[in-house]
Amino acid sequence: MGRLTGGDPSLLRRINSAVVLHALRGADAHTFTDLTRITGLSRPTVEGVVEGLMEGGLVVESAPEEGEARRQGRPARRFRFRAEAGHLLGIEIGPHRVAALLSGLDGRIIGAGSREVSETAPADERLDRVRTVVADVLRRAGVARSNLRAVGVGTPGIVEADGTVRLGTALPGWTGLALGDRLRRSFRCPVIVENDANAAAVAEHWKGAATDSDDIVFVLAGLSPGAGSLIGGRLHRGFGGAAGEIGALHLLGRGVTPEHLLSTTDEPLHPLDEQAVTEVFALARKGDARAQAAVERFIQRLVHDVGALVLAIDPELVVIGGWAAGLDGVLPPLREELARFCLRPPRVVLSLLGEAAVATGALRLALDHVEEQLFAVDGTVTARR
Amino acid sequence: MGRLTGGDPSLLRRINSAVVLHALRGADAHTFTDLTRITGLSRPTVEGVVEGLMEGGLVVESAPEEGEARRQGRPARRFRFRAEAGHLLGIEIGPHRVAALLSGLDGRIIGAGSREVSETAPADERLDRVRTVVADVLRRAGVARSNLRAVGVGTPGIVEADGTVRLGTALPGWTGLALGDRLRRSFRCPVIVENDANAAAVAEHWKGAATDSDDIVFVLAGLSPGAGSLIGGRLHRGFGGAAGEIGALHLLGRGVTPEHLLSTTDEPLHPLDEQAVTEVFALARKGDARAQAAVERFIQRLVHDVGALVLAIDPELVVIGGWAAGLDGVLPPLREELARFCLRPPRVVLSLLGEAAVATGALRLALDHVEEQLFAVDGTVTARR
Repeated sequence: MGRLTGGDPSLLRRINSAVVLHALRGADAHTFTDLTRITGLSRPTVEGVVEGLMEGGLVVESAPEEGEARRQGRPARRFRFRAEAGHLLGIEIGPHRVAALLSGLDGRIIGAGSREVSETAPADERLDRVRTVVADVLRRAGVARSNLRAVGVGTPGIVEADGTVRLGTALPGWTGLALGDRLRRSFRCPVIVENDANAAAVAEHWKGAATDSDDIVFVLAGLSPGAGSLIGGRLHRGFGGAAGEIGALHLLGRGVTPEHLLSTTDEPLHPLDEQAVTEVFALARKGDARAQAAVERFIQRLVHDVGALVLAIDPELVVIGGWAAGLDGVLPPLREELARFCLRPPRVVLSLLGEAAVATGALRLALDHVEEQLFAVDGTVTARR
Repeated sequence: MGRLTGGDPSLLRRINSAVVLHALRGADAHTFTDLTRITGLSRPTVEGVVEGLMEGGLVVESAPEEGEARRQGRPARRFRFRAEAGHLLGIEIGPHRVAALLSGLDGRIIGAGSREVSETAPADERLDRVRTVVADVLRRAGVARSNLRAVGVGTPGIVEADGTVRLGTALPGWTGLALGDRLRRSFRCPVIVENDANAAAVAEHWKGAATDSDDIVFVLAGLSPGAGSLIGGRLHRGFGGAAGEIGALHLLGRGVTPEHLLSTTDEPLHPLDEQAVTEVFALARKGDARAQAAVERFIQRLVHDVGALVLAIDPELVVIGGWAAGLDGVLPPLREELARFCLRPPRVVLSLLGEAAVATGALRLALDHVEEQLFAVDGTVTARR
């Protein structure tokens, strides 16, 4: 705290730069006069800071507006944030597909691509597929790899801070994989790896079903469900990055394994066999009693899993995503049971981003990383929307 | 952010006061020289600030140390924080007892008292009992009621920010009770009301089994368990104050009610009948098969509840408190099951504070409130411990 009163001039310069950059990104500030008014800084300070940002390539002078040029006198100089000064990738590496989204520094998506991959593919093959998708997306958008400022990745499993997959049973060869290091060979910029449900939670909060709440639980529903939560707008990863990994909940004091949940025979379903699962749901809709019982079991399990998350965390909003979200009849029983048993039931909605949620969240995490560098000053000032 | 550069002199004065007060409370700073060194402030600033704190009654000049007085020249002036400048109460209002702890501004306990109360007592009677206990504690410690700076209260139920009990089924007449308002009639200082398990979590972190961790779940085990959690050292109350209220978890997709869990007959146990519960546990130890089965059910339920909290939140440490914590055989099966089913099992320990946990946490919350006023400056600077 003592430092706050010390008056470090370089710290002040950085704070002022962050303030001005933030105002320029915010849209309606384009002239020195605008910036002076919005930031509360003096005109000479604003001019000096803008000069520095232009040298750094983050700000550019733009043409005066039509109307203004025609007015009397010299038009005011106008500036804009250069979103194209850097690019970001959000990548999903899932059991069945890899996908990538590309954006500029403003987070607006300017490229996308995906490829299917077998759930049995070894890690090397899966990473090859990632490289192919990324190369394709960059080529089509005409963006040089060297222009990437950060890459975010969402993938199943418990992910360490350095991007190593501590435990990831959903993908072959995933547990123990130094995924961050492997990807850093392909990219010269920072690579942030995050659990897929966590990434999806961030995505729904950014531009999905949860933009109006800072306290959410996102459930990636499936045969082995995972969840991600935001508390006060911040991702809650848990002490060891395992928060929301509720796959084993039903095993605590119960007998049913997930593979048997939706099975209509004595044979378990493969946990990733979405095709078989979809067939069971279709059969149930047609009135097949055995399939209906299986669907009932599946929904009970989902209710129980979501209920546990809600009772433990007490979010304002629950967002249901993942493949189960596309299946009929999941929301009504969920809402009904939560209303019955939760002391303060949350709202329950379906994901708006659907399949794009994980890659979108990964992109947002990459953007967060870059914005921290652009806007944060020793953790004391963080300018986010 | 612009304000940071504006140089508000009164803001600076407040920051400096907080810094100096914090250093004085910290123990080893007693002289102007100490304070100048530790805070990084100039000697004249430190002198001015100490002067102001003495006027405010928070700091007092103390006698020079023995050795120093004998040295050559005038001994350096010494100062100390006046913990006795104000007092705090931590109160537990539970189903069977009310209890109160009294401390000075340093949080050191200087008085304690408790009384039994019937679980069927109406709200007015319970509050009367609270007033009796408080009057008794204050009188014995010789502390005037007017010297109280804040009162913390821990009680079962979901508690609103203003101290109203939104839902509290454990105590008669508790749901809807404006508990904060009722108690503010007895005290002229701020009254902070908190859920009992939340208060206990704060207590174990302050001076119990969780002083070495900032990411904990405290489980108030019993027939209707509740939990409180700290995330990054901060109490996680949930969006509606209901986080950790996992009493209904077993009902989501299950059939057993808590009252039947430990029953050895077809008659349910009263959820608060600790005596009957203790007898069941005693019978089980003597080899009674039916009691053993009941205890087994109870432990399975606890494992499941704690498992849900752990999977959702991923704490570093789980602290088991409440009456069940005193019963044999709870920890080993808990640890074993969590190790089997959690991707990253937490440490599991018993409460160190036992019966005192809720009142201790309530006291800490009162202390937090006062420290925020003493040390915080518009939420930008918070100096704790």
